[in-house]
This record gives sequence, structure tokens and C-alpha cells, in this order.
Amino acid sequence: MSFSFTLAATDGVARTGSIATPRGEIRTPAFMPVGTAGTVKAMMPESVAATGADILLGNTYHLMLRPGAERVARLGGLHRFMNWDRPILTDSGGFQVMSLAGLRKLTEEGVTFQSHIDGSKHLLSPETSMEIQRLLGSDIVMCFDECPALPADEGAVEASMRLSMRWAARSREAFGDRPGHALFGIQQGGVTEDLRGQSAEALKTIGFEGYAIGGLAVGEGQEAMFGVLDYAPGMLPQDRPRYLMGVGKPDDIVGAVKRGVDMMDCVLPSRSGRTGQAWTRRGQVNLRNARHADDPRPLDEACTCPACRNYSRAYLHHVVRAGEMIAGMLLTWHNLHYYQELMAGMRAAIAEGRFAAFETDFHATREAGDIERL
Amino acid sequence: MSFSFTLAATDGVARTGSIATPRGEIRTPAFMPVGTAGTVKAMMPESVAATGADILLGNTYHLMLRPGAERVARLGGLHRFMNWDRPILTDSGGFQVMSLAGLRKLTEEGVTFQSHIDGSKHLLSPETSMEIQRLLGSDIVMCFDECPALPADEGAVEASMRLSMRWAARSREAFGDRPGHALFGIQQGGVTEDLRGQSAEALKTIGFEGYAIGGLAVGEGQEAMFGVLDYAPGMLPQDRPRYLMGVGKPDDIVGAVKRGVDMMDCVLPSRSGRTGQAWTRRGQVNLRNARHADDPRPLDEACTCPACRNYSRAYLHHVVRAGEMIAGMLLTWHNLHYYQELMAGMRAAIAEGRFAAFETDFHATREAGDIERL
Repeated sequence: MSFSFTLAATDGVARTGSIATPRGEIRTPAFMPVGTAGTVKAMMPESVAATGADILLGNTYHLMLRPGAERVARLGGLHRFMNWDRPILTDSGGFQVMSLAGLRKLTEEGVTFQSHIDGSKHLLSPETSMEIQRLLGSDIVMCFDECPALPADEGAVEASMRLSMRWAARSREAFGDRPGHALFGIQQGGVTEDLRGQSAEALKTIGFEGYAIGGLAVGEGQEAMFGVLDYAPGMLPQDRPRYLMGVGKPDDIVGAVKRGVDMMDCVLPSRSGRTGQAWTRRGQVNLRNARHADDPRPLDEACTCPACRNYSRAYLHHVVRAGEMIAGMLLTWHNLHYYQELMAGMRAAIAEGRFAAFETDFHATREAGDIERL
Repeated sequence: MSFSFTLAATDGVARTGSIATPRGEIRTPAFMPVGTAGTVKAMMPESVAATGADILLGNTYHLMLRPGAERVARLGGLHRFMNWDRPILTDSGGFQVMSLAGLRKLTEEGVTFQSHIDGSKHLLSPETSMEIQRLLGSDIVMCFDECPALPADEGAVEASMRLSMRWAARSREAFGDRPGHALFGIQQGGVTEDLRGQSAEALKTIGFEGYAIGGLAVGEGQEAMFGVLDYAPGMLPQDRPRYLMGVGKPDDIVGAVKRGVDMMDCVLPSRSGRTGQAWTRRGQVNLRNARHADDPRPLDEACTCPACRNYSRAYLHHVVRAGEMIAGMLLTWHNLHYYQELMAGMRAAIAEGRFAAFETDFHATREAGDIERL
């Protein structure tokens, strides 16, 4: 069975559908939890699946350094290694090289860098990134690209975009013919519409199974990001999934789906869960706050996750304060559950042609804020 | 329904049976995982139950300081607070006061001390300990006692034992009449048979629902501990459960059951799990060791816990090295599973009159050591 994308319904430019892969279906719009180093932090993979996640993201940069792509391949691939049999998307390593590695050197060939773990030297290029993602056994492979931090001057953004497009062509070539696996191109061009358009054309000329919108959620702010999303998704093929990389907060996600995005990923729900922060339909709740110490009510009485079903805010507050691992376990579970419920709500709303009402209700519930203190 | 103990079978002086409580049955010999501050670290309570644990231990000292016993009572008691509906035994706080608190002052009345968390001043006495354990909703309450570190001179051990016996009488008086709940006396007397005998007589005169052997596993070594266990359990009533506090490693546990102990608790399986250490029928395995980096085999191919069923040693090694929370989650689960399997094996062996063969096999399998490296 090969990789394919089917659009089921649209509402405005918002879309719902599904991606078929040999490892199972990905319902879109989809949120992908991040399993950086072979684990979604604080979660058992069966719990991640229980939240409704159809696909995980793995980080090429982390996995190539530890435990190493060849080792993962010898052990049967990333799915088997981390006990996750549904689809996995891997990034190209390009973003993390720029944010984590030491002593980077960027050339036409690729990026040489030192591991942030042990200082060892490595090369990431379109060819090595494709090889590493193949060894990992990724279902959706990302082109190797360069992602400049914003703000940057337009000349630098343009040069970087053109380099990424040359690397996209080399990625396509190196990826080869791999039935059932997909290669996604990544649109760059910063916040400049003309560059975004040129990037989209370059990618379409090469041809990919899906198209990502890269270079956003890197410090430009929500308004600038939505400004780009007002035009960028429409530059990409209608009949291919569109993936907005590294986004985001719940309101970023709703705004992105409204603008025609099909897939997203972000560390936020899991990272927040490890610092006592919960995301709920009423907004963000800091369980560390003393107001919860005697509160017998659940975090969200309408939520069916284990944290909300079985524990009080007082308990969550206690375990956050005491630094207990179960705090991160329960709050990560809740946050991922909330994110997936949000995606399911949007899929249903788009299918039923009521996305605008969904969005109004989403914002109204958040603006009403958390429940009154007792 | 009231608290009762039924002996089903004996084999030598080893015993198997069950304790009936309103919250469920405790199969003996029983191992109690430790849930210090309202959580068995790194575990969801349903996972603890899945390992086969019938009862947890909670620490009075930790819970009285944070979140506070009155607060736990207002929130419906410890069972509801931590989402564990089976029996809970709480210690008296006496042991942790001596090992953790600052600025202790011991008098006939009790111990005043400063919290290791915020420096606040507290009094633990037989009366306050009984009240705190009542507020927590503990099913099995422990007498407030003093536990001197060993080695100590016999005069000090004797004086401490006599103080503990006076405190035992005050604990019994303060506990009052609480159907369905049990109060356990604690034998002291160090490694001196005569003092152990005098302590047992004092406790039997007061009368308890169960009897603990205290003051062991405090640095005296296994040989000295077994020396005491050769006579101490026999000094306690046949028809009441005997609880050896704070023990221990798997071979300590087998040796204690052989000598007539019915209940034990220890942080070891959970603490080890958070430092990459696994306990298996073949002995201890350090997953941090590089020999596991490429090993596709499970930790123990005969074990049915999630860590052994779903992951390779290579994966466990990777997540231990990477400091991922799932390392502690999986290894704690494995260790608790192994401990409960060990208890189940002993219960079956005693019931079938083959404890000696069980013990021989237990030691032979451990002595053969871990599987050969690949």
C-alpha cells in the first residue's frame, strides 16, 4: 500500500481528510506529539496512542547522535525500538543543528557540526539526512533545509531559501523510490510573500508527497505567522498534505487549521506538562499556584484523561510541588489528550461545515478563563 | 467487615495466608511498594496494582509535612487523594524523623523536630502519630517507636526499646476502637535475643492486630539480620501477621519469608529503577552498562512486564543514558513486577510444601548470573 492523501471536506480554506500509510491512517488536521530521542517524554507509547495521536515526530539530530541511526536500524528501526507501530515523521536535523550543535560550518554541501553530547564531529547534508531517516525507518521524511532565525534581512532569507531549494532537489534525488514512504518538501521565504511563492514553485517543480511550511514559529510572533499563513498554504498543492512545522499553542493551532494547514507538531504540551503547566479549553493553568492546594475539583471536569478523571487539583498541585515524576506523567497526558481532543473537535467541525462556530466557541471559552477559585 | 488474618499453610516456619480488610485482601507473604509522598515514584497507581501489589506503604513523616494530614483528610483521605483504593499501611513517622528531620529533640513525650522542607516545627508523639495516621485514613497503622541505628551499645538499645514499649501502650490507647483498621506493635531490641523477647512480651501484653519486627535493615548486615530473624518471628503470636520493616533485597526477602515473616516493604525496587538498576531472577542488571547498547534481547525473556515484553536492553540502555523519564518508569515497573512475582512464587511454594526447593532454585538462578553478552 502506498502513501496517499484524501480530502474529505473543506470549510472555508480549512480542510479535513486523512493520510493513508502502510502503518495506519493519519486523520487530518493532525497534531504530532514530539518523541525527540525515542520517547515522548514522561509517556508510555500506549498512553500516547490512547490520547488519539495517529503519528509521532522523531528528531533526526538527536537520534543520529544517540543512540545512532545505524544502531537503530540494526535493532529493527525506530518503530520497534521505541514500541510505536503507527506512522512516524522525522525532521531532517537541520533545525536542531542550528539551535543545539556546537561549532557549525555551513557550506553548499551541508552542515558540519559537533555533537552537543560528546563533541564528536558530524556532517548533515541532503544525502546524509535522507540516509539517516531511511535507517530510522521513518514513514514521512523531511527534506534537509536551512531555517534562518527571524527577524533576518530579506537578502539573507532569500539566499537561505534558494539554498534550501537546491537541497530540496538533492533530497528528492537521494530519497529515491521508496513505496509507502513519503518525502515532504519545505517551503521557506520568511515573512516575504514573493519569496514564499518562489519557494512553493520550486518545490512543486521537484514534486513531493507533502509540503511543509518551514521557517515559522521561530520568534516572529503570532500576528506575523498568521500573516504568512494567510497566503502560504494556498501556494501549495491542494491535493497534498500541508504541514506547519513546530506549531504551537492551542490558539496558534486553531488559527493555522483555519488557514488550511493539515499537520502540526510541537513540544509544548509535553514540555509544559513537566513544569506544572496544563492546557485546558479554559486556557493555561499553573498547577504550582497555591490556589490549587485545597481544591478537590479536577483540572477540567469535562476532560476524560486520567489526570482529570482520577485526581484533584490539590493532588496535582502537591505532586508538582514535591517534584514527583507522576506530576509530569499526568500533566503531559492531560496536555496531549487536550491537544488531540482539540484536533478531533476541529475535524468534526470542518466535516460539518461549522468551523467558524467552533472557533468562536474556542476563543469564548478561553477568554472566560479558569474556574473560579473556591 | 473487620480486619483479620488467616493462615492457609506453613512450610517449616514459612507461612502463607491472607489478611482480610474492608478495602480488600492482602495475600501473604506480601511485599508493599513504598508510596512515600502520595505516589509510588515513576508509577501510575493502576500500574502498581497491575504488578500484583495488594497494599502500599505511605510515609507519615512526609505526608504530615506536605501536603499535611488535615488537608489530606479534607480531600477525602489518602486513598482518594492518590487514587489507590486498596489497603494502605502508614509508618509512624518515627524512623524518618530520625533520618531526615533537622534539630530533633527526643523526650518521654515524643520528638520535636524541624521539617527538612521548610524548617517548620512539629511534634511527633504516640498521640499525634495516631491522629495523623487516622486523618490519612490508613488501614494499617504503626505504633510510634524509636529506632536506634545499629551498631549501638546494648544499654542504649535497651533504653530505646523500653521507651518504644511505653510509646506502644500510649499508641494503643490513642488509637482507640476503629473497626476495620488495624494497629501493629513494633518489636525492638536490636540484635539481642533477650531484649527482643522482652519487647515481644510487652507488646503481647498490650495486644495488637499485627506485630512488626523493627530496628533491622539499619546497617547491621544480612547475617546479623538473619540471626535475629532466626528467633524474633517465633516470639510473636502465630495468629497475627508479622511485618519486617524496610526489607529489602530479593535474597533478604526470601530469607525473611523462610524465617516466618509475612509482610515487608522497601524503597529498593522503585529507587533502583530510577538509577538504571534492574532486579531480575538472574540478579541485578545495570542497564547503564555499555554491554547493553546493541543488545536486542529483553531484560528478562521470561518476564511479562511491559519493559521486558515491549523493549530491548538496547532501548533501556539508551533511555537510561539519555536521562529520559521512561527509563525510570519502565525499570520501576519491571522491578515491582519482579518483586511481586517473587512473592507469588513463594506463596505458591509454601502452599505446596516445596519452599526449600524454591529457595534452592532462587539462589541457583541468581548465581548463574545474567545472560551472556552477545
